[in-house]
Amino acid sequence: MSYDIALLPGDGIGPTVVDAAVPVLDAAAAANDVDVETTRYDWGTQRYFDTGAMMPEDGLDRLASFDAILFGAVGHPDVPDHIPLDGLILPIRKRFDQTVCRRPAVLFDGVRSPLRAYEGGDIDILVFRENTEGEYADVGGREHRGFANEVAVQSAVYTRRSTERIVRAAFEAATERSGHLTNVTKSNAQAHGMVFWDDIVAEVSEEYPDVDVERLLVDAASMDFVRRPDEFDVVVASNLFGDILTDVGAIVTGSMGLAPSANIDPGNDHPSMFEPVHGSAFDIMGEGVANPLATVLSGSLMFDHLGEEAAASALWDVVADQLADENAPRTPDLGGDSTTEAVATDLRGRL
Amino acid sequence: MSYDIALLPGDGIGPTVVDAAVPVLDAAAAANDVDVETTRYDWGTQRYFDTGAMMPEDGLDRLASFDAILFGAVGHPDVPDHIPLDGLILPIRKRFDQTVCRRPAVLFDGVRSPLRAYEGGDIDILVFRENTEGEYADVGGREHRGFANEVAVQSAVYTRRSTERIVRAAFEAATERSGHLTNVTKSNAQAHGMVFWDDIVAEVSEEYPDVDVERLLVDAASMDFVRRPDEFDVVVASNLFGDILTDVGAIVTGSMGLAPSANIDPGNDHPSMFEPVHGSAFDIMGEGVANPLATVLSGSLMFDHLGEEAAASALWDVVADQLADENAPRTPDLGGDSTTEAVATDLRGRL
Ligand SMILES: CC(C)[C@H](C(=O)O)[C@@H](O)C(=O)O
Ligand SMILES: CC(C)[C@H](C(=O)O)[C@@H](O)C(=O)O
Repeated sequence: MSYDIALLPGDGIGPTVVDAAVPVLDAAAAANDVDVETTRYDWGTQRYFDTGAMMPEDGLDRLASFDAILFGAVGHPDVPDHIPLDGLILPIRKRFDQTVCRRPAVLFDGVRSPLRAYEGGDIDILVFRENTEGEYADVGGREHRGFANEVAVQSAVYTRRSTERIVRAAFEAATERSGHLTNVTKSNAQAHGMVFWDDIVAEVSEEYPDVDVERLLVDAASMDFVRRPDEFDVVVASNLFGDILTDVGAIVTGSMGLAPSANIDPGNDHPSMFEPVHGSAFDIMGEGVANPLATVLSGSLMFDHLGEEAAASALWDVVADQLADENAPRTPDLGGDSTTEAVATDLRGRL
Repeated sequence: MSYDIALLPGDGIGPTVVDAAVPVLDAAAAANDVDVETTRYDWGTQRYFDTGAMMPEDGLDRLASFDAILFGAVGHPDVPDHIPLDGLILPIRKRFDQTVCRRPAVLFDGVRSPLRAYEGGDIDILVFRENTEGEYADVGGREHRGFANEVAVQSAVYTRRSTERIVRAAFEAATERSGHLTNVTKSNAQAHGMVFWDDIVAEVSEEYPDVDVERLLVDAASMDFVRRPDEFDVVVASNLFGDILTDVGAIVTGSMGLAPSANIDPGNDHPSMFEPVHGSAFDIMGEGVANPLATVLSGSLMFDHLGEEAAASALWDVVADQLADENAPRTPDLGGDSTTEAVATDLRGRL
């Protein structure tokens, strides 16, 4: 099979990790009879500085015909955060109906968790995060601006369609894994949105009688990702709660440099997007030491989504292999002093 | 000076820890020329089962004339979470204008953090959490219930008054401590409420030119409470974000059994309330092994708020003393096998 992949390296270390990961993806593809054609778009903050827009006006249309998108990172210290987000990544998630954000948090053998009690193999969590609405809805405003009685409102919006889509994706995964699903909400303090969410979970759970559902409040869940991460398997949460939990999950499994993610349209009408969870990290930009592994693992999630399981496993396994080998090169986030390039080259040698 | 203190032990382990802590508070008070009169109210879920209400109708009025409230915990496995909350704790926070929730997260000498890199003395964070509105506002609803186009809305409400009050309290504390304040928001995705919050922080910061303000997104902050907790000093956040961060802060400093909290009316027109961060923990109720230290430390925050600094320090120091002594009794949450009573008795012996 042959696939057309759009590359959006973006800002900061985004190009470093994408350009290093692509040859690894290509090699894994070639070894498994998969053909990959990539098209690289230089959209991002530099384009915004030059032209006033993160991407061309027809940017989304151009992406629409690809089989998948591989994304690096966006964000620039000199630009307010919402510019790169509203100008590129959030519109992609929405336009392509990528309701399902799938984020594994796995403690690989050979990687040191900051938590004393855990070592390689102990943590294997899969978070399903609603990706297009909820607490990120652009609904709200301010009244009496500057006066003593000023008030600001920020409304979270949960639709049945998106909530069912994310919840169902989580139940499907729970069925394939341990049959255990943790539903994270804040229903004790948010009686409108979160109780609705719980109701959808209860409805969908009727279709999956073999999945056992545990409820946890987001404060307790964030704590428990530190206290007992080994006890989680599949987790489902709203946009904001999933965002928080996956950052905590990434750090307890060793490094943001290892956390991949998939932004999936479960209807498969549009391209899905695959991206490392880490950001543009301008503090290390240009040093050539960014960890490419989160991007390679995102590539594995991409092949998995495309149905190319052999290529997907090859990529996942080669990363696990490298991490388990204490003589292999490592980037500074993992305590080593190797370059992005050295890590990527070593990976290709192992394929 | 003499103070009238209302005791609300509540549910589960609440009575265990409050009844164990009060004699310790009394002893510290007596040793420092402070007189404490306590009145104990059996409000909570048992009362709800018996009478249909968590507290009497005039409950809040009865509390109004006290100098302070010492609270245990509420919540019962057989009752939906919102009943004890809406029936007791949230009305107290609101009615008594307790905008400022102050929660220290300190890694005491002798306590083992689950994080490898940290030992006693390394972590000393003070979180200021807005305590009466924000994401907990009871604003929202559902439309098209049960239909495909159903939608639920949950609105967060931020008023200038409350936001200024919490932000100012945090700046005051930062001035007295290191002059460093971390402002935690999600302004990249919540352009209405959180940008308003940032604006208030910017305004108030003009009054405190010596305080240097760092901005952090809540996902990054939750991760950084695990990755680099030693670098935080004073932190300010909304109701929900403060809730999440203080649970993460409690676990990285060793145990929920050590985390105290103060719910303060900065105007001092009403009684403030002091409570351990942990909940009613029905799994260990009646076993007599709940950790009383969070409640004793909450008593220290209470005396501090009342201006009784000697009694406040005596309580804080005696807890630190006991924890640093490896032969002292410890409850199971800290790896020991002592009872609540043994820990409290030992504390009194050290006063
Ligand atoms: C960049 C930002 C909008 C994003 C989010 O909050 O979704 C990031 O934190 C993530 O987790 O993908
Ligand atoms: C009991 C609950 C309402 C409460 C909260 O979320 O405020 C608790 O988690 C806390 O942190 O005090």
